[in-house]
Amino acid sequence: MSSAAGLAADRGLHYGDGLFETIRCVGARAPLWDWHQERLAGGCARLGLPEPDWRRLQRRLARAASAHAAATVKLIWTAGSAPRGYARPDPVVGRALIQAQVWRPTPPRLLNLCWCQTRLALQPALAGLKHLNRLEQVLARAEWRSADIDEGLMLDMQGRVVAATSANLFIREGGRWLTPELSGCGIAGVARRWLMARCPVVETVLDPEQIKAAEVVVLSNAVRGPLQVGALGGRRWSADTEVQDLQAAWEQQFAATAASP
Amino acid sequence: MSSAAGLAADRGLHYGDGLFETIRCVGARAPLWDWHQERLAGGCARLGLPEPDWRRLQRRLARAASAHAAATVKLIWTAGSAPRGYARPDPVVGRALIQAQVWRPTPPRLLNLCWCQTRLALQPALAGLKHLNRLEQVLARAEWRSADIDEGLMLDMQGRVVAATSANLFIREGGRWLTPELSGCGIAGVARRWLMARCPVVETVLDPEQIKAAEVVVLSNAVRGPLQVGALGGRRWSADTEVQDLQAAWEQQFAATAASP
Repeated sequence: MSSAAGLAADRGLHYGDGLFETIRCVGARAPLWDWHQERLAGGCARLGLPEPDWRRLQRRLARAASAHAAATVKLIWTAGSAPRGYARPDPVVGRALIQAQVWRPTPPRLLNLCWCQTRLALQPALAGLKHLNRLEQVLARAEWRSADIDEGLMLDMQGRVVAATSANLFIREGGRWLTPELSGCGIAGVARRWLMARCPVVETVLDPEQIKAAEVVVLSNAVRGPLQVGALGGRRWSADTEVQDLQAAWEQQFAATAASP
Repeated sequence: MSSAAGLAADRGLHYGDGLFETIRCVGARAPLWDWHQERLAGGCARLGLPEPDWRRLQRRLARAASAHAAATVKLIWTAGSAPRGYARPDPVVGRALIQAQVWRPTPPRLLNLCWCQTRLALQPALAGLKHLNRLEQVLARAEWRSADIDEGLMLDMQGRVVAATSANLFIREGGRWLTPELSGCGIAGVARRWLMARCPVVETVLDPEQIKAAEVVVLSNAVRGPLQVGALGGRRWSADTEVQDLQAAWEQQFAATAASP
């Protein structure tokens, strides 16, 4: 499945022809699995890739995850091995790579953010997808080395705020939650979906001034859930009780899974 | 170097964090090696990657190529293995993957082209580079299945013609050679550089109407050199002697290498 010969010819490596999911697990279970599966299936449809054999995949994921009491499991689903060239083989035989690592709790704290210079290109054909073409995020993440900075915010080519390098973005403005719409770029995160299911959130266009002026700024990803931003440029925010409640609800779903038989 | 464990953690696979070259070789030699090396070095500088150990790499390339009298050698240079996350390790230890396949002569013939719907996003930070984020080309190449179609032309998001999925583009218009400028997207091919060194070519913005109206349309890549387009949509072109001369000059450099001691 992941022999060196196979992987060396894999279209994921050659072209980034594939998708990935990062899944937080408790024992062998992933509370948000259905949403990860839906997103991966949707990505396959948009890229023209076959879907995995879900039963077999779930067995492999459970086996990998159960090595730890709590784990984050990275699933990479590629177009598989093929002769050289952009043309996919017919049929495509996808390849799943599964990598688990232990998940350790970190006390929620306020994040320290910077602005990235690297912009996100506008590409509706790929927008929203968690695909393997991530050089923009790599270049953005390489802009800072200080361990004091937790994340960087990225703008698109038109100067609109899209996301952090590895997290979605939310702001509260006049009591309303807003998040960037993702029709041109960005990744539609599973924790973003969780937040939008939990409280009313408006998808819209956000400019940098709105971030600076926001009452609250939150980042989210599927491993850590919602985390509040404490500093960005000269601006400071103090801890917000609504975000603390959201964090507690996020963690509760994993605790509940751990406690259930 | 390419063990399964190493490759499975490679940033080339996870993020497309790397570059590639496709090099036509004669025995152990590559007539255009200096330009491949320059482009790869330039790509490393722009992406912030270390350069390979060139001597060691050339030895490996020569060994791989010499398995065939004539070969195309694909070289992939990635940011190497690393723990999960967009942040590169410090230092980055690059990984070279080298794959040779036999090169076989194909009689030059007029190419049959189509227009692709998939557009190229504008991303100056990556424009010109032969990097591993190639989903746009994969999606464009998936638009046709007919073996009668040799290549597809791609526009950028502003409707300007950039290239074919795996070749650069040239047109002759009023006796002058023109090729798309690549400040926003596209790959600066080695055969493109060869053509521009050989005859005066103006880098400019090209719209689809100019392609249809051109006296001659040519595609180029480092394996096959310049190839003339014979059909695109309803338009037909007949063989052009200037292109035939260019093809002969392209092949001559490989023949000369084969003949030299």
